[in-house]
Amino acid sequence: MGKTRIGAAGIVGLTVTLLCFGSVLFAQRHKVIVDQDARGPATTDIQSILMFLQSPDVEVLGITTVTGDQWVKEETLHALRAVEIAGRTDVPVVMGAEYPLLNSKEESEWWEERFGQFGYKGAWTPRFYHPPEVVPELPEGKPTAKPLNEHAVSFIIRMVHKYPHEVTLWAGGPLTNIALAIRMDPEIPLLAKELVLMGSGFNVGQGGISGINGRREFNWWFDPEAVHIVMHAPWKKITITPVDISIKTFLSDDIKARIARSDTPVARYLTQFSRPSTMWDELSAAAFLDPGIITEQKELHVDIDISHGASYGQTIFVEKGTKVPEDWPVSIVQFGLNTERFYRMYVDLMTRPARTASLPASR
Amino acid sequence: MGKTRIGAAGIVGLTVTLLCFGSVLFAQRHKVIVDQDARGPATTDIQSILMFLQSPDVEVLGITTVTGDQWVKEETLHALRAVEIAGRTDVPVVMGAEYPLLNSKEESEWWEERFGQFGYKGAWTPRFYHPPEVVPELPEGKPTAKPLNEHAVSFIIRMVHKYPHEVTLWAGGPLTNIALAIRMDPEIPLLAKELVLMGSGFNVGQGGISGINGRREFNWWFDPEAVHIVMHAPWKKITITPVDISIKTFLSDDIKARIARSDTPVARYLTQFSRPSTMWDELSAAAFLDPGIITEQKELHVDIDISHGASYGQTIFVEKGTKVPEDWPVSIVQFGLNTERFYRMYVDLMTRPARTASLPASR
Amino acid sequence: MGKTRIGAAGIVGLTVTLLCFGSVLFAQRHKVIVDQDARGPATTDIQSILMFLQSPDVEVLGITTVTGDQWVKEETLHALRAVEIAGRTDVPVVMGAEYPLLNSKEESEWWEERFGQFGYKGAWTPRFYHPPEVVPELPEGKPTAKPLNEHAVSFIIRMVHKYPHEVTLWAGGPLTNIALAIRMDPEIPLLAKELVLMGSGFNVGQGGISGINGRREFNWWFDPEAVHIVMHAPWKKITITPVDISIKTFLSDDIKARIARSDTPVARYLTQFSRPSTMWDELSAAAFLDPGIITEQKELHVDIDISHGASYGQTIFVEKGTKVPEDWPVSIVQFGLNTERFYRMYVDLMTRPARTASLPASR
Amino acid sequence: MGKTRIGAAGIVGLTVTLLCFGSVLFAQRHKVIVDQDARGPATTDIQSILMFLQSPDVEVLGITTVTGDQWVKEETLHALRAVEIAGRTDVPVVMGAEYPLLNSKEESEWWEERFGQFGYKGAWTPRFYHPPEVVPELPEGKPTAKPLNEHAVSFIIRMVHKYPHEVTLWAGGPLTNIALAIRMDPEIPLLAKELVLMGSGFNVGQGGISGINGRREFNWWFDPEAVHIVMHAPWKKITITPVDISIKTFLSDDIKARIARSDTPVARYLTQFSRPSTMWDELSAAAFLDPGIITEQKELHVDIDISHGASYGQTIFVEKGTKVPEDWPVSIVQFGLNTERFYRMYVDLMTRPARTASLPASR
Repeated sequence: MGKTRIGAAGIVGLTVTLLCFGSVLFAQRHKVIVDQDARGPATTDIQSILMFLQSPDVEVLGITTVTGDQWVKEETLHALRAVEIAGRTDVPVVMGAEYPLLNSKEESEWWEERFGQFGYKGAWTPRFYHPPEVVPELPEGKPTAKPLNEHAVSFIIRMVHKYPHEVTLWAGGPLTNIALAIRMDPEIPLLAKELVLMGSGFNVGQGGISGINGRREFNWWFDPEAVHIVMHAPWKKITITPVDISIKTFLSDDIKARIARSDTPVARYLTQFSRPSTMWDELSAAAFLDPGIITEQKELHVDIDISHGASYGQTIFVEKGTKVPEDWPVSIVQFGLNTERFYRMYVDLMTRPARTASLPASR
Repeated sequence: MGKTRIGAAGIVGLTVTLLCFGSVLFAQRHKVIVDQDARGPATTDIQSILMFLQSPDVEVLGITTVTGDQWVKEETLHALRAVEIAGRTDVPVVMGAEYPLLNSKEESEWWEERFGQFGYKGAWTPRFYHPPEVVPELPEGKPTAKPLNEHAVSFIIRMVHKYPHEVTLWAGGPLTNIALAIRMDPEIPLLAKELVLMGSGFNVGQGGISGINGRREFNWWFDPEAVHIVMHAPWKKITITPVDISIKTFLSDDIKARIARSDTPVARYLTQFSRPSTMWDELSAAAFLDPGIITEQKELHVDIDISHGASYGQTIFVEKGTKVPEDWPVSIVQFGLNTERFYRMYVDLMTRPARTASLPASR
Repeated sequence: MGKTRIGAAGIVGLTVTLLCFGSVLFAQRHKVIVDQDARGPATTDIQSILMFLQSPDVEVLGITTVTGDQWVKEETLHALRAVEIAGRTDVPVVMGAEYPLLNSKEESEWWEERFGQFGYKGAWTPRFYHPPEVVPELPEGKPTAKPLNEHAVSFIIRMVHKYPHEVTLWAGGPLTNIALAIRMDPEIPLLAKELVLMGSGFNVGQGGISGINGRREFNWWFDPEAVHIVMHAPWKKITITPVDISIKTFLSDDIKARIARSDTPVARYLTQFSRPSTMWDELSAAAFLDPGIITEQKELHVDIDISHGASYGQTIFVEKGTKVPEDWPVSIVQFGLNTERFYRMYVDLMTRPARTASLPASR
Repeated sequence: MGKTRIGAAGIVGLTVTLLCFGSVLFAQRHKVIVDQDARGPATTDIQSILMFLQSPDVEVLGITTVTGDQWVKEETLHALRAVEIAGRTDVPVVMGAEYPLLNSKEESEWWEERFGQFGYKGAWTPRFYHPPEVVPELPEGKPTAKPLNEHAVSFIIRMVHKYPHEVTLWAGGPLTNIALAIRMDPEIPLLAKELVLMGSGFNVGQGGISGINGRREFNWWFDPEAVHIVMHAPWKKITITPVDISIKTFLSDDIKARIARSDTPVARYLTQFSRPSTMWDELSAAAFLDPGIITEQKELHVDIDISHGASYGQTIFVEKGTKVPEDWPVSIVQFGLNTERFYRMYVDLMTRPARTASLPASR
């Protein structure tokens, strides 16, 4: 009885609370486009996508794909499958650029002949190379969902105009889509809220594609000219998660075990497919969701070498305060993190029940 | 009897034939997208657009604009006004890229400090520079027509897919739009009928942007990376009108006088605004409309230097038969022309009454 | 009587005249160092050396050799043999640089993979390649003379200091020796009288090492960085014989026949070994010996592309009057010649009796 | 008397001892050419020279100078003065290259406009720039000794041929002299014993010329093309002291105080002129004199970027075992040191009495 009464009052109160909380949440939720070279299953690419999908703090406007770790056609299917597993088919997957602007498998091979062989070249890596139109069988199962009937670049442009000054572009792969969006519509950097990305390397002897040379970080190396376009655009804010901080993380068996205790589809998927690895993109996603994870960051002018020589695709940078050309803004570059806080968030997000797509679709 | 019967049948047959022939003619009209840095009024850019609009042999699917001789916003208005004057507002004008992929006014200035000042830099020429969003008053009057509410790159992609293997992409300016179309949709070169363009320079001491150095031809220099993307794409056919042949033409006072005898809006517009000049784009348009104008051409592997050094934007080329990388196709490069035939066609097209837009719009 | 008297007076007068004339001659004779990639036997390289040796107007201080058309060790023997045949062992042959500053056979092969195969690469040409220390048998016989026990670069520096403002450096090959001399002693350009060279290409579709691309002229392409050093040094005067004028010449069977009528060792050597060919270096030598041969020349700022990309080793140039960096002087570039006068001089020099080395050696 | 006897015995004994000691020493002593951009007074450049001069274990064949931290004319005087102060005028000072091969003050200024201002440019640093021929007053006094009447490059070539397989080339400055020696005589790397150098940077955020970018280390950046020539030459052994290890050292006030306790001319000179600083060249010298100072080193393929773009002059490297071109040898790169052992050696050498030049000059 009392229980009923209390219950009744409780239900009303709860409803009100939820409505208030809901609208507050809605107002506060960051609108994000997750641009990713979505190698699957699992991998740092898909895991960071799942973090966004599971987080109550963001509204993922869409997941846009781009060739990088794999070819974009294959990646798009992996992304779709991940969205299905997360129960978030309300979030569109939008296929993007199949090739980088200038870089190519052929150019990478000429480069290697002169300057030394790479250990990893994403979709171009010889030991698992296949042509862009080939899609090997998906271990995690084929998605039934379809990508949006629109190009990722058009989607990015459309969303940024629909929600001026509200959209965060978060990029976990090569920057081809974003560079194309800028060249199609120069207002994009001015109309977006901010750019957050995983890429680049500074002073670090791991994490790059050429072993000990961390400045040749994969995402940036894969499409250097795209990076150059993006890093000289008039964004209101650029935040970079470089390999220097990535390599301070590790997706250990212990973390996997903590996730395996959960029995959600996401947890089961990760338990089956996730591998021990540096947490490149997960950290970048986490630092966006909870900036308190970052304990050290610097403002630097950051760019990439687009000379087609020995340093093609290497990060270049100078300190804030150095006299540089006017169109070269500073970026906020993350160097230190609270590791425990990061791992805790990761496990928490990955073991939650799926977010329901309760809110009206905003696209 | 048999004869009569045959005759009757013949007449019917003839009618059918004519109808068929009519539709055959229609089927044969070349579908062209005219991609142009449409500096106006008049100029080689607008004059070549008018040739296409006046020609009975082509169906202009659209005029797409791109920054080059002027900024694209200004050019788009000049193109719209030209379309109005030609009475062809049935042909859409579609605005394209505002900036080249990598090249920039700033980079051109650094280059000049090291390697010598340019005589002409299109929209970046100091003596008539204004920012991209500024549109000076149009001497020929403001157009009332509006550009299509679509980006030139999307328009190109849409048209090429709508009419697979039928569309000629004719480019009289920097190749930014076409390169972006390729990077948005790698099937474009395979689905287009052919690419025809004005650009590049080989062995010629005039016609380039640096006086005696004809290999640094303006259209190509303005967006070298776009040229590189375009020249390595799998087109079925590439035809190039280089400055080597351009400089064998001249829009003289005599030609102007022959046009001035006509009293069409187009002739009046040209009489008022056209200036004596090399006929770069008019020749490229003419050679497409009547290949018989060309008396000498060669097959060459053609590309551009994208090193950001002394030769940035210079044409590079090797003879057909030279061992080159597989993805470097040959182009047909025009070197000799029948000048009289060309001038005759130009005067003829420019003095015709406006084509009526009698055919059902195909877009 | 009168005769005797006259004679006596005459003898005295003659002696005086001769002495005066001699000293006048001596004073007027140009001191030249002939720097050459002396491929032998005969060839444009050796033939130009012979012109200098046979000319009464120059004092050849030495012949310095440099790898280019062949490796320098082989060339040095060909040069020594030519000096012997011309009876001019009073002129020292001095061996120079074996390798260009930066360019290499390996780099040329990488370049070819990307940008197309070369037709000719001098000592690196695959069809007659041998290592630098190998010297194939000399068809014209082995020389008994020895090269000077000094490096060509030291010799150049020593001579220019010995005869300040008197020495013409004439270069018919890659500019490695001269660049090294400048970097060893920055005063060389200021202390030399002038620099005369065969190299570079402007607007011409023959004569280069890549078929139709005349701007990639062999001498300059072989050591681009040396050219860059040389063309930015403070010479009092630079004169260039480019391929644009070279290709207006031809060493025909007719010219050979005119030489064959002579029975000097030089004529016999040429009759046996000389081949029909463009007269690259002979023309440059001739124009130095008789400037009247040149009918058209221009002042241009000339340099070379040292970007290691598509245009590595291509001539770059801008018109005099263009705003360029201060340290980029103009060169006099020859474009037109009096062909008959040139051929006449060539035949005349090659059919003369050997000059006797009557003058005291000046080194 | 006794004195005489003792003296007599003493003289004999001493002579024997000296002969034995001398011959043992002579056999063991490393023959070194110290190639240095000898900024003075004191500085890391001069201090490392003094270490070699003071060490009983090496025979310094000569000190060759090269522009870098200062212009070579000024440096040569500082080096001569240091030699005088150390009482070692038996060691010749030989002046070398005034300019790097390709790099220049002008190029550095163009670079800075595009990619950001440098903090330090050696002889080209604006805040203390003067022309190469100007020599400001020497605070430590003018030397009376003169440099050898020979060019450093000739000297290096001559010594390496005189003592085949015995000479260590130790380079503490830009590699211009050594590169020129290689290009003058390709046998130098094969005939030298080894190459030891201070230069390059790998993964370090200090010590370079652009603040946080340690890969643009001064010595290497000043003449990148020289480094490229040197690093692709067939040395028997290359040892590199990079800034990564340099920055683990510091010439503190404490070390200065320990030296100040000594009253030798060298100690007095250092006490007066030496400044607290990273010990770049001292460490490289020390590690050569006592390899036990180094606690960690790696074998890497090391080179430099010679593209004239954003990374011009930056160290490039790949791990040993990577597939690289055949002509790219590995170098031994030092990363860790026993700091105390290093400081002890430094203080010990700098506080010793001057070595007497007791041995017959070997040049």
